[in-house]
Amino acid sequence: MRAASMGLVLLPLLAGRMALAQAVPAQSAPAVEDFKPASSNQGGKEYPQVNSERRARFRIVAPQAQSVKVPEWGGVALTKGEDGAWIGTTRPLDEGFHYYRINIDGAEVPDPGSKPYFGAGRWGSAIEIPAQDEEFYAVKDVPHGQVRRTLYFSKSTNATRRCFVYTPPDYDKDATRRYPVLYLQHGAFEDETGWGDQGRANLILDNLIAGGKSRPFLIVMDNGGNNFGVGPRRGAPPAPGGAAGGGGRPRFDFSAFAKIMTEELIPYIDANFRTLADQPHRAMAGLSMGGAQTRQITLANLDKFSHIGLFSGGSIAATDPALADPSAFKQKVKVLFVSYGSRENTAAAKANHEALEKLGIKNTYYESPNTAHEWQTWRRSLHQFAPLVFQG
Amino acid sequence: MRAASMGLVLLPLLAGRMALAQAVPAQSAPAVEDFKPASSNQGGKEYPQVNSERRARFRIVAPQAQSVKVPEWGGVALTKGEDGAWIGTTRPLDEGFHYYRINIDGAEVPDPGSKPYFGAGRWGSAIEIPAQDEEFYAVKDVPHGQVRRTLYFSKSTNATRRCFVYTPPDYDKDATRRYPVLYLQHGAFEDETGWGDQGRANLILDNLIAGGKSRPFLIVMDNGGNNFGVGPRRGAPPAPGGAAGGGGRPRFDFSAFAKIMTEELIPYIDANFRTLADQPHRAMAGLSMGGAQTRQITLANLDKFSHIGLFSGGSIAATDPALADPSAFKQKVKVLFVSYGSRENTAAAKANHEALEKLGIKNTYYESPNTAHEWQTWRRSLHQFAPLVFQG
Repeated sequence: MRAASMGLVLLPLLAGRMALAQAVPAQSAPAVEDFKPASSNQGGKEYPQVNSERRARFRIVAPQAQSVKVPEWGGVALTKGEDGAWIGTTRPLDEGFHYYRINIDGAEVPDPGSKPYFGAGRWGSAIEIPAQDEEFYAVKDVPHGQVRRTLYFSKSTNATRRCFVYTPPDYDKDATRRYPVLYLQHGAFEDETGWGDQGRANLILDNLIAGGKSRPFLIVMDNGGNNFGVGPRRGAPPAPGGAAGGGGRPRFDFSAFAKIMTEELIPYIDANFRTLADQPHRAMAGLSMGGAQTRQITLANLDKFSHIGLFSGGSIAATDPALADPSAFKQKVKVLFVSYGSRENTAAAKANHEALEKLGIKNTYYESPNTAHEWQTWRRSLHQFAPLVFQG
Repeated sequence: MRAASMGLVLLPLLAGRMALAQAVPAQSAPAVEDFKPASSNQGGKEYPQVNSERRARFRIVAPQAQSVKVPEWGGVALTKGEDGAWIGTTRPLDEGFHYYRINIDGAEVPDPGSKPYFGAGRWGSAIEIPAQDEEFYAVKDVPHGQVRRTLYFSKSTNATRRCFVYTPPDYDKDATRRYPVLYLQHGAFEDETGWGDQGRANLILDNLIAGGKSRPFLIVMDNGGNNFGVGPRRGAPPAPGGAAGGGGRPRFDFSAFAKIMTEELIPYIDANFRTLADQPHRAMAGLSMGGAQTRQITLANLDKFSHIGLFSGGSIAATDPALADPSAFKQKVKVLFVSYGSRENTAAAKANHEALEKLGIKNTYYESPNTAHEWQTWRRSLHQFAPLVFQG
């Protein structure tokens, strides 16, 4: 159990990296020639393209370049045509959304064909591979909520911070109605734009609500920072949340963000939006590092959170101090949801799921088919998680 | 007068281009070595930098490249250092915000140091040069409004469209209060993100409202498209709005956008936000092409708009058919505001300003000091325009 728990703590360290390192050599059999511009492209841009096999094809105009490549997917070497444009094609990729870069003669730059997305620590390129289940995050002619860019002042950091708040479609229709809130966190090397851009959290909720499958709620997406480390800081006090800190074990230091969230962000949201401002109506979830933050912040603040979602971001062992009194835990935590992509290491999460069930703690384990540590796993996770929450 | 009017119609064609072509050779005297990272950079990126002379310095790591340059400002050639990084410095630039590109061995790509901004027809790079008056658009610890990403369905185009709606700081405090609305348009080769990102419309209003200098109002920022042309389309009906169409004179065809704005966007906003949904409380303004759209759409719809702002986007000649009955025009149009940068061709706008005054039509002409056809002119224009509107 201890070993399983450690593995889960380590995994989120790789957030935004594993998706960049599915190390299978590119190009083997010839590609099916039915390529179309990717939906993640800038308007009017013909490249990159995707075909029916889920291969991506890149084209970069660089007449004087010596070498053009895409470092992702084991490295995709582009070859130069007579028109001065370099072209290269990947092996079939996972369904969903993938970050990538272009390397031109040693310069790592965004692809001018892609819209910009924040991930892997920079505003860069990404490609959307069509998925069999893409309807759940498609833009449809249903009532839409808003994504509100919101600025608030943080005393602890003496700075104006930005978050995005999704308000469901009917939020402005009835000025007396109040809503539950989900605090939803991005991964390492990502930021507060992730869930509203590539994560499509707003569209997922719009579609679920239109289909009567989810209760309307607010989603708050803030910046969880990237200030994590491995091992205890010298002279540092034990991390809040306990389980992941101390003793030379891998740990994250989320104390600054935990303070912002519990002492500044939640009060700001409750004062400025029509929330149901109590523990039964407050959830937190996150992907990868955001899952580790969720685990640490919720378990240390069970007076504030009743619903917990960990997406590729660890799970909770039966030996966790937070479960010392299982019936107290059960009374506070209404939904505990853990998910992974089927191509991730899922053994510990499954073992923990079963151990918790034996302990009498009902919890949900979801596995996204044929995906790894990547956004399609997390879109699907939100799509599974949202209908479960705030049903009490 | 006819000649003046024509010149003004031509000018907006150059939107997003003139800023890219201030053709003065780069680098002459040595630069003052007090460079700091630009505020438009991605978090943690050291380059590009700006010094106290308003020079920009670029640095691109491209060890195997043969040539690296910045095509803007007459062309800035970067030179390679022993570390494989290419560096180049511009002449002193205008205060404010400037788009630019990097050319690496013939490939035109974004600078990985810059945040992405949409302009010049693509998501690309830009650099913010500190301005003496930058306080009016700075992030301050004042009450902030929200910028709401809003999706709505457009029947005429059978598509879900996106706009951004700025709601002032107190919008959610009193659910009975209603607000005037400014429809605010970007320029050619820009989109609905321009005013809320590089334009800082939200911060300009937040600061004006905090200082008691502007009445709170909503700002709606939609995508005006880029489908304009010169000369009449073959077989096309006369353009709505009249003055700029027909007769082989330069013209813009904004009819599709005019239809969206008047028949779809305004009704959507009035149905979904707490607006004062009448002519006295509705304004339209725009920059460059957006000014030409404003001119055409407002003059053809004076039953819908009472406040008009043209920022580097033409002016209204005394001979304009819309002024055939000056007293009728005066009764409908409460504010007519025209602005240019001092480095633009301002002769026609000044002449038209005076001709209208002689006609008894009070109107405001504003000139942004030491700026050209660029965002600093338009930020300042909004800052001047906002306090004038909705004072009736």
